[in-house]
Amino acid sequence: MARVFALIPAAGMGKRMGAGYNKQYLALDGMPIVAHTVRVFQEAACIDAIYLVSPEQEIPFCRSEVVERYGFTKVRAIVPGGAERQHSVHNGLRAIEGIAPDDLVLIHDGVRPFVTAAMLEASVAAAQASGAAIVAVPVKDTVKVVRDGVIAETPAREQLWLAQTPQAFRYGLIRAAHDEAAADGFLGTDDASLMERQGKPVQVVRGDYTNIKITTPEDMILAEAFLKEKK
Amino acid sequence: MARVFALIPAAGMGKRMGAGYNKQYLALDGMPIVAHTVRVFQEAACIDAIYLVSPEQEIPFCRSEVVERYGFTKVRAIVPGGAERQHSVHNGLRAIEGIAPDDLVLIHDGVRPFVTAAMLEASVAAAQASGAAIVAVPVKDTVKVVRDGVIAETPAREQLWLAQTPQAFRYGLIRAAHDEAAADGFLGTDDASLMERQGKPVQVVRGDYTNIKITTPEDMILAEAFLKEKK
Repeated sequence: MARVFALIPAAGMGKRMGAGYNKQYLALDGMPIVAHTVRVFQEAACIDAIYLVSPEQEIPFCRSEVVERYGFTKVRAIVPGGAERQHSVHNGLRAIEGIAPDDLVLIHDGVRPFVTAAMLEASVAAAQASGAAIVAVPVKDTVKVVRDGVIAETPAREQLWLAQTPQAFRYGLIRAAHDEAAADGFLGTDDASLMERQGKPVQVVRGDYTNIKITTPEDMILAEAFLKEKK
Repeated sequence: MARVFALIPAAGMGKRMGAGYNKQYLALDGMPIVAHTVRVFQEAACIDAIYLVSPEQEIPFCRSEVVERYGFTKVRAIVPGGAERQHSVHNGLRAIEGIAPDDLVLIHDGVRPFVTAAMLEASVAAAQASGAAIVAVPVKDTVKVVRDGVIAETPAREQLWLAQTPQAFRYGLIRAAHDEAAADGFLGTDDASLMERQGKPVQVVRGDYTNIKITTPEDMILAEAFLKEKK
């Protein structure tokens, strides 16, 4: 039976947030955003172990204020992050001890605290079956391809989805995709794009519009409102 | 000098909202959503007159509870809507009295109450200069083209924008585009797409992420939070 590892990069510098510190430590209902996120993985039966990725200078803070403070016993290590998210994930992938090529890795943004156990289970099932799967939601708005300030195209909306996380992969596949991207100096906007680049199929699992990534002050307002509704 | 007409369809049936009545009449801070929207156009110096589009059976309600109740003196008429948004807009375009081909029409969703006077002015300026312009924001998420549940492509994010409204046009251009679409039985996802279909250039004006379309209960939560922040 394949084991399931979670890899959670939380290395964003929070520039868009205008906060004086990294956004993943902003408090939502008194608890850092990233702690909300990790808790979902800690409590999900399908997750065997968790690796966090953090800027090197914040590792002690992350250990004491997140991992130890909330008793996240599944966290095996906090790995130093890289310059871009993709580098951070690559570092994390290389740091997982004793993982086999057929084991699964769920890569999830530290600043997506509204992920649910059901999303984790659906991702694991899909990646187990097909090797690679991402959570996504259908686009509700009209998307335009714009060149030089003028609309070039309106792609058919029925085919457009917004990628979220978790993105779940058989370890051997995503490790190879990251290694190749690093060797080529290719930067993708998400992990799935590195496998797509190799022509590998990636399944889509339906997520939820509430599974937002908190990157702007407006997102924080929404997150607080979601939390209030949940109570 | 071209005159500027606003055309505001508010004919959505609110199915996604799960409300027992049309979403445009849901109260935000004690005032119907559509009244918030119309107020921005009423107060904007660049707007000469407003036409609303409403389901026929709701026109009396809309007149008394929105137009008369809040004293929207620029509203010239409430036009009966059609089966789809595009039909409603087409009805509205045909109902504007005394409009000249070079006058401008700003088409705006009734359920986008966070439009600002600055967006209206920028749209008018761009449409005056080029004939057609829409408000849009850069996509923040990774968009995937999905076919049969598998990712087919990840389009370059730098070129992707999410269309919002207002969408502003020289009347002669958008009227011709709507007439042709109706004759062909073509349904687009927005008004600009009908001009794109004719190979006409449409400019993009940068909007704001707060200019949301309220279509789901989550949107309503966000809208209430935005309003609270504004105060």
